[in-house]
This record gives sequence, C-alpha cells and structure tokens, in this order.
Amino acid sequence: MNATPDTAAATMAAEHEAFIAAVATQLNSFLAEKRVLMEGISPATLVLVDSIKTLVTGGKRMRALLCYWGWRGAGGAADAPAIIAAGAALELFQAAALIHDDIIDRSDTRRGGPSVHRQFSTLHSDSGWALDDERFGHAAAILTGDLCLSLSEEMFAGIGAGAASRARAVFNLMRTEVMAGQYLDILEEVAGPSKPHETAVARASAIIRYKSAKYSSEHPLVLGGALAGASAELLGGYSAFALPLGEAFQLRDDVLGVFGDPAQTGKPAGDDLREGKRTVLVGLTIDNAGETDRTFVDRNLGRQDLSDADIERMCAIMVDSGALARTEDMIGELSGTAFAALARLPIDASVAGALSALGRGAVSRTA
Amino acid sequence: MNATPDTAAATMAAEHEAFIAAVATQLNSFLAEKRVLMEGISPATLVLVDSIKTLVTGGKRMRALLCYWGWRGAGGAADAPAIIAAGAALELFQAAALIHDDIIDRSDTRRGGPSVHRQFSTLHSDSGWALDDERFGHAAAILTGDLCLSLSEEMFAGIGAGAASRARAVFNLMRTEVMAGQYLDILEEVAGPSKPHETAVARASAIIRYKSAKYSSEHPLVLGGALAGASAELLGGYSAFALPLGEAFQLRDDVLGVFGDPAQTGKPAGDDLREGKRTVLVGLTIDNAGETDRTFVDRNLGRQDLSDADIERMCAIMVDSGALARTEDMIGELSGTAFAALARLPIDASVAGALSALGRGAVSRTA
Repeated sequence: MNATPDTAAATMAAEHEAFIAAVATQLNSFLAEKRVLMEGISPATLVLVDSIKTLVTGGKRMRALLCYWGWRGAGGAADAPAIIAAGAALELFQAAALIHDDIIDRSDTRRGGPSVHRQFSTLHSDSGWALDDERFGHAAAILTGDLCLSLSEEMFAGIGAGAASRARAVFNLMRTEVMAGQYLDILEEVAGPSKPHETAVARASAIIRYKSAKYSSEHPLVLGGALAGASAELLGGYSAFALPLGEAFQLRDDVLGVFGDPAQTGKPAGDDLREGKRTVLVGLTIDNAGETDRTFVDRNLGRQDLSDADIERMCAIMVDSGALARTEDMIGELSGTAFAALARLPIDASVAGALSALGRGAVSRTA
Repeated sequence: MNATPDTAAATMAAEHEAFIAAVATQLNSFLAEKRVLMEGISPATLVLVDSIKTLVTGGKRMRALLCYWGWRGAGGAADAPAIIAAGAALELFQAAALIHDDIIDRSDTRRGGPSVHRQFSTLHSDSGWALDDERFGHAAAILTGDLCLSLSEEMFAGIGAGAASRARAVFNLMRTEVMAGQYLDILEEVAGPSKPHETAVARASAIIRYKSAKYSSEHPLVLGGALAGASAELLGGYSAFALPLGEAFQLRDDVLGVFGDPAQTGKPAGDDLREGKRTVLVGLTIDNAGETDRTFVDRNLGRQDLSDADIERMCAIMVDSGALARTEDMIGELSGTAFAALARLPIDASVAGALSALGRGAVSRTA
C-alpha cells in the first residue's frame, strides 16, 4: 500500500523534526561531557563551552538536514547514531566558523545575541579587568573557535568512518575548501577595488562556490550519502543538485544582506555594505553601473562609518544598474538547474520531497 | 652480544635523525598535495599553505620526538608509517597553535622570521591593497591557523586509530586541555592583577600544567605509547616522567623569556614582560617582593611601551626577591622527580637513554 502524497509529506516532516531533536540531544550530551572536563581544569574555562552551547542551540541546521537526507536517499536508517553524530559535527564546525567569522567581520551580533568575541569583551569590562577589553574578547574568541573546531572533528571521528573512506575525504575537503573560500572573500575585500571591474562577477562567483555552495550545500549532502555507502553515480547526482542550490542560497543571502528586513534577518540594515562584502550582487553593480556610481560604490564599500544616506544611495545604484534584477534572475536560473537535477535523482520520492522543501525554503526565504 | 653504551647512544642518535627526516618528508608530501588542491581553487590561496610549510620546517620537533620515543619504548617499530604520521600531526597542531598565539600575543616574529599575521599584513601593504593592512593580516592568519588545525587532524585521522582507541582519546584530550590552558593564560593577564598575590604561583602553575606540560610533554609521550598499544601501567609511568619534565621545561622557558640572550632565543629582551605573561616566575616575584616593588611589577607588566629601564628594574626585582633563584630550584626539583620516574620505566635502556637526552636538553637549554 502506497502512502498518499500528504501522509508522505507528514511522515517526512516528522522525521525532519525527530532528526533535529536527536542532533540537539547529541550536542547537549557531548557538550555536557566537555563541561565536566573543563570544570576539572578550572571553572573559569566554562564560559568557552557555554558560548559554544548557545551558538549550536540556534540556527536552521540546514547543513545537518542536507546531510541527513543525503543519508536517507542512499538508504541509511532514520535514527542511526552515525548520521546524528555527522549532523552534530557539521553544526559544531559551522559554530566554529561563525565565531571566527564574527571576529574577522567585526560583527557584534549573531543570531540576535552578542557574538562570542563581544560576550568576552563584555565579561572583561563588567569584571573591571586590566588591559584592553576588545583585545581580550578577540583572543578568547579565537581560542573558543579553535576549541569548537577541535570538538567538531572529535565528534566526526567518533563515527568511526575509516581513514580511507569517502565520507572522511568529503569532511577533509569541505574544511580545506571553506577556509580557502573564506580567504578569497577577505582578499577580495581588499584587493578587489584594484582589479578589473569586468571580472568582479567571476571572482565573486568563485568565492560563493567555495565559501558557501560547496561548504553549506554540496558537501553536507554528499557526506550523508557517502556515510550510507552511496554509489559514485548517486553522489554525482547529489552534487548536480546541491551545488547550484547552494549558489542560489548564497545569492539570496547576499540580497537579504542588503535589501532584507532587519527585523526578519536579525542583522542591521547595510551591515554587509559596511563590512565591504564583494558579493556577486556588488560585482554586477560595479560592472553595470555608470562610472560615477561605480566609483561611489568602489570607494565606500567596507567603510565602517557609512551613513544611512550612503547606504540608501548604494541600494539605489544596485536597483538602477539592474544588478538586483539580474541577481534575482540568477537565483531563478540556478534553482531551475538544481531542481531539474533533483528530479533526476534515483531516490525515494518522499526523500526527494523533503529535499525539495528544504531547497525551496533556502532560496525563497526572507530571513 | 650487547651494544656498548656508546654504540647504543649512536644508534639512538641515528634513529632520532631518521625520524626527524621522515616527519619532514611526510609533511612535505602532505603539504604538496594540499598545494595542488589549493591551486585548483585559486593560486591566490597558495600563501596559506606556504606559510604553514615555512612554519613546520623550523622548530625543535620536541613533541614529535617524545611521541616517537613513547612509541619505541612500548615496542613500536622504528619506521612505521603510523608514528611518522602522528609526529607530523603534532607538528601541524603546534604550527596552528603558534599562528593563533602570535595574533593573540601581537608577536611580530616567529623563529627568526615574520609571524604569519605579519606576513599577511606585509603582503597587504606591499600590494597597495585597500582598507587596513593589520586587520587583513589578523583575518588571514586566523584562517591559516584554522586550516592548519584541520590539516593536523586530517593527518592524525589518516593513521586510522579507532574512534574508541586510547590514542584518539589522548589526541582529543590534548586539544581541549591546551585550549583551556591558553584561555587561563590570557585570563590571568587581565584578571591576575585583581586577584590575591598569595595565589599567583598556584594560578601560574595551573596554567603551565595545561598549556605546556601536558600539551608539550605528557600527551605526546603517552600518545606514542598508546599508538603502540602500551599497557595502562606503562602509560602511567610515562606521565610520571613527562608531566614534571614539561613543567620544568616551561619554567626554563619563562626564565629564558626574561633573562635569555636575545641572540640565542630569537626573541627581543623583555618581550615576555611587555606581553604581560603571568608566569610562575612573575608569581614568585609579586608574592615575595616588597610592596613598592610588587606594585611596580603589577602595574607595568603587559604594557607594550615598557622602556629598557623599566625592564631592567623588573629583572632586578625578580633577582632581589629571590624569585629567580626559587624558579631555578623548582626546575631542579621537577627535573629530579622526572628523571627518577624515567629510571623506573620498564623500557629498553637505549630508549630510556634517548628520553633522558631529550629531557636534559629541554630543561638546561639556553635557547
């Protein structure tokens, strides 16, 4: 007897929730163990674990979920410990990346609360300690990120995926690629202005491929499949779906970073422009705007003291140059490619439905 | 036929050199592989791997060597791939720690060359890029350290030590403890001045235990033993030797950081005092100096603009308070405990000889 589409969707939604809950439980018990260890070293070190705990409690868990459905599509069982640990490892890795990203971007907020370096600088000033609060905040957050990165790996190693396994290879590649992508991102912020504006879009596209699309979408899905022993063909199909999906997701993120509603995104308006992120949207803007506008964007992007009027003018240039519309077109095209690839995947229809729902949410979201 | 002591020592010295060479070869071929991967992402990312390469090319390789002799003492074969990879993983981990430490300590030099964040800030200013060179240097070095930390783990995972193995547990514990110890270290710099001077020595002792002695000495030796399948008894004996040895090593480091010859240590005179390191030597000083001197040390430690005269006065206080002599006594006592434990180890005399030579070099060095 076949399930109707409605009951299949309900079953998948229940599975989705059960997996999220299982990952949360896994993270909680793992971090509780680490808390005992840290307390034995010194109660003063508990703040490190606690700030990691707060960070992994939030978030959409998109990477963990992609990993899960990649596993399920390849025949993995719904509540196997390995996939729960893999999801938890991805969440810890993402938390580590966020902690260090926020130092690099000088972001004071994260998921509606203070970023980790800000938590530590506040601890410093509230305690009336000596020397510089900001410097202490950065130093403590560098160490907390390092701890979180090690814990991510400890969690992944606990799965017992063999040294020569495809899953281990994906986990390794993911880490190297995202760090290379992040470097290209900060490099573009400083070196971009002196490079030809004709290649700005190509440069920004390479950044989102490595920093976002492969890391946040392709690798998690492929990792789940590899853990379940998927064929090379299925893994290739996963890539054909998840890479363009991840690119569309990041383009959506870039649009929201400039045009999103701060009440919904949790980020102040213009934050991305003050950070100087050289996104595809920015690339399209400086490649298509007239010279005066291009110079304005090039000179002002990344200035921490951008006024609201500067931000408004930059937004207007993004609209008037056609860059925003072109970005929306690209999101549409990439999504089309992704969902066509999804339709061709030799996986259970209910798993395909879950991946489709996840993907559509990612590219059409408002926060 | 037994080897004479002299030929045994010569054999051990040759083995020591062969192992160092094998670790170097392993690191070179591993980083060459990563270079190919990074070049495929973008040639602009090669600087990350190259700065790691430079860093792992230098150094005394003390952790790798302790790991090796721990392995040999437990019956591991001289040229087994697992121990070479473990040594290489420890070297990569140490390089990652140094990259982030140098950001935290604002150290511009490392092993006679520019530190990694300084290499990147110089690349920025030499290239005439936009925005701030120092901020770019820190951001790029955070990412390079993260990459190096991941590579260390990738190298360790390549050994294939099981998820539940003792060696994996040691590797995990080592990472958590050293990060907790580093946090206690930066915390002491800022919170130390407002804490009772009577507990300064105890606080500093806890820091060196986790940040240095366990990380640089006990865990590497135990890791090598665990990889070779040593008994719990032998591993306990390794700890009894290596923990006090590591404490003595760090006390020697602290003395050299203040009283060492810059020409030999490669660090500017007074660097540790300008950094505000609250070592056991400093703890003994503020606990034993008169009130005027104590206040002088407490107020000036960690000031980046300390004059040569300030440094000289601080050194004189360390000598006159008896703190330097007491530190030397502690080094002697800890070494005595360590070498007595070494004498009791149920290991081959030639391996014990190699560990003894390594240990004596560590505590009586001048650089």
